[in-house]
Amino acid sequence: MDPKPNLPAARDKLLFTPGPLTTSLTVKTAMLHDAGSWHSEFNAIVKAVREKLLALAGLSGEAGYEAILMQGSGTFGVEAVLATVIPSDGKLLVVSNGAYGERMIRMAQYLKIECAALRCAENCIPDLHQFEQSLTADLSISHVAVVHCETTTGILNPISELGQITRRHRRSYIVDAMSSFGAIKIDLEAAGIDYLISSANKCLEGVPGFSFVIARRASLLGSEGHARSLSLDLLDQLRGFEKNGQFRYTPPTHSILAFEQALKELDQEGGVAARGTRYQRNHHVLVEGMQKLGFRAYLDRAVQSYIITAFHYLADPKFTFADFYARLAGKGFIIYPGKISQADTFRVGSIGRLFESDMRALLAAIAEVLEEMEIKS
Amino acid sequence: MDPKPNLPAARDKLLFTPGPLTTSLTVKTAMLHDAGSWHSEFNAIVKAVREKLLALAGLSGEAGYEAILMQGSGTFGVEAVLATVIPSDGKLLVVSNGAYGERMIRMAQYLKIECAALRCAENCIPDLHQFEQSLTADLSISHVAVVHCETTTGILNPISELGQITRRHRRSYIVDAMSSFGAIKIDLEAAGIDYLISSANKCLEGVPGFSFVIARRASLLGSEGHARSLSLDLLDQLRGFEKNGQFRYTPPTHSILAFEQALKELDQEGGVAARGTRYQRNHHVLVEGMQKLGFRAYLDRAVQSYIITAFHYLADPKFTFADFYARLAGKGFIIYPGKISQADTFRVGSIGRLFESDMRALLAAIAEVLEEMEIKS
Repeated sequence: MDPKPNLPAARDKLLFTPGPLTTSLTVKTAMLHDAGSWHSEFNAIVKAVREKLLALAGLSGEAGYEAILMQGSGTFGVEAVLATVIPSDGKLLVVSNGAYGERMIRMAQYLKIECAALRCAENCIPDLHQFEQSLTADLSISHVAVVHCETTTGILNPISELGQITRRHRRSYIVDAMSSFGAIKIDLEAAGIDYLISSANKCLEGVPGFSFVIARRASLLGSEGHARSLSLDLLDQLRGFEKNGQFRYTPPTHSILAFEQALKELDQEGGVAARGTRYQRNHHVLVEGMQKLGFRAYLDRAVQSYIITAFHYLADPKFTFADFYARLAGKGFIIYPGKISQADTFRVGSIGRLFESDMRALLAAIAEVLEEMEIKS
Repeated sequence: MDPKPNLPAARDKLLFTPGPLTTSLTVKTAMLHDAGSWHSEFNAIVKAVREKLLALAGLSGEAGYEAILMQGSGTFGVEAVLATVIPSDGKLLVVSNGAYGERMIRMAQYLKIECAALRCAENCIPDLHQFEQSLTADLSISHVAVVHCETTTGILNPISELGQITRRHRRSYIVDAMSSFGAIKIDLEAAGIDYLISSANKCLEGVPGFSFVIARRASLLGSEGHARSLSLDLLDQLRGFEKNGQFRYTPPTHSILAFEQALKELDQEGGVAARGTRYQRNHHVLVEGMQKLGFRAYLDRAVQSYIITAFHYLADPKFTFADFYARLAGKGFIIYPGKISQADTFRVGSIGRLFESDMRALLAAIAEVLEEMEIKS
């Protein structure tokens, strides 16, 4: 019944999404090897990758942090933190303004962790005064969690300000930096972050297969006995690496080889600052071009990240997202649907192995599609 | 400090392990594409892969089974089943004769699932009479779990006989067929299996990144509300596939493209029977050659699978596993350490893209190594 799927061999569609992303061919060809997960060669790569992640976070080994890789998607990494570090009598406060904040609340329900939510509208950043009041009012809150870049909208939350308040109130601080780490500089020590979670296939431009957690060692070691899942036990995972350099359970060896190469290519580009600059340029070219085509960004510029941008549907009755998406896909450009509850939007990512020229090519394709759909812009 | 790890570009070391395994170059080159996880092309591949897994199990869609892919290693798939399908007042009986049986017991402890163990020695298969007595004696046991091929030793457990007893006693039946599915024919209906777990990077010769569960649909649908983890919620994962064809959370897209190709290559080889025959030949060549070199297999032939074989260390005082392993690795052959509690053994796998000629090459290398180590065989 289905047309046989055929990924074109010559050139893949470009992915303007929050991930998986378009990656370099050299990152992908690093996967043309089968590594033994028990062998020292592979374990040396795992060690080097873990150290490099700390260095990217501006942390040396002596800073008291550990980088821990976890099999599965970013969601698995976030759940590993919640499932491992919050004691049975702990309480989590999730600061939420989007789907990924809500996902942490849902995780807490599954894990039977007591949980409070401080919600604000999806186009607003949380009120710091109200946040501090929440901590003052409820002394049973042991942990605070927030998403850095909420890819629901592309909003950038003030993790440093929230972290300083959290530290003043002596609570543990968990940051989901899935789609920001590697492109936006994050000072974990200044922000008082105990656990930061990110993924191989976001701004570091690896392929999917695992996430990673940068954890304050002392905080994690204090979590003994809390874990609610064997697979997701982050402390046991760290102990595995420290015992023999190995993952406890089969690692996605090929994804890790790709990641090693991706980290080299980040250095070649000039590190986090240079990558951020490229994404920023991508974002500016996109927003400017989309405005000319009649599209309005969902967020105010003041709170908009350069990672992913949500745009309102065009008001024209001839505009349907399904048609718009399919026509762009037909031309080799994959955009992303919206995830916002109160508005009809779609999203366009600026991250991955994409350059200004790709953004301009996308804009040209969008202009063509609007013409085909007989929509005046 | 560390010598810079360099995987040789020309030819990887051959992996005689329980996985990750040596795969074909065509399986690996299928990963040279970036697929959008939201896009219809990729979702058509996921759908085809899920249907093909059912076909490999001899099940049509009408048989009432579903194949559900789960991110992470095989362990994540096993824990997803335990965490999703056993109610809070349920009780699990694990039939255990090795490390993977013990791992399920440990999972149950993490998940706070009441659990009993029926243990036997690592070189013995469980006693069916004793098993039936366990079920008769404890009516609170709701679920039974067993490992098909315990890669601890390579022993093959009688899953069909255990399953028939389990069905007679109307309990649910979970089989960890991680390292057997795809090479040993399993009749899920005849064995009364409700949940079978296996992995992409075992006998199906894909790369690591996900596991899969073949579940009796009616059993799984009856698990509503039991899940103890969002990431590992197998029922929610199925609902995601049924809602829009997508994974709920980022899939390892490249591993899935590799798997699609691996399944094609299984067909080209002649299916499960032909693959089993190749592995069987690999195993026979190995055991015969090792005997000639003075090595004794740990298991009796009657219970030994052709997947992986445990051998006793040589009694010669000049034999150390570390030296033996390192010398073989230096020649391009990766074997595997032992995992048996009561005996000093190492293991050699017969699975993956390995042929009789590879087994003979390994045997020749072992002979050379013994000579270098001045061990008389």
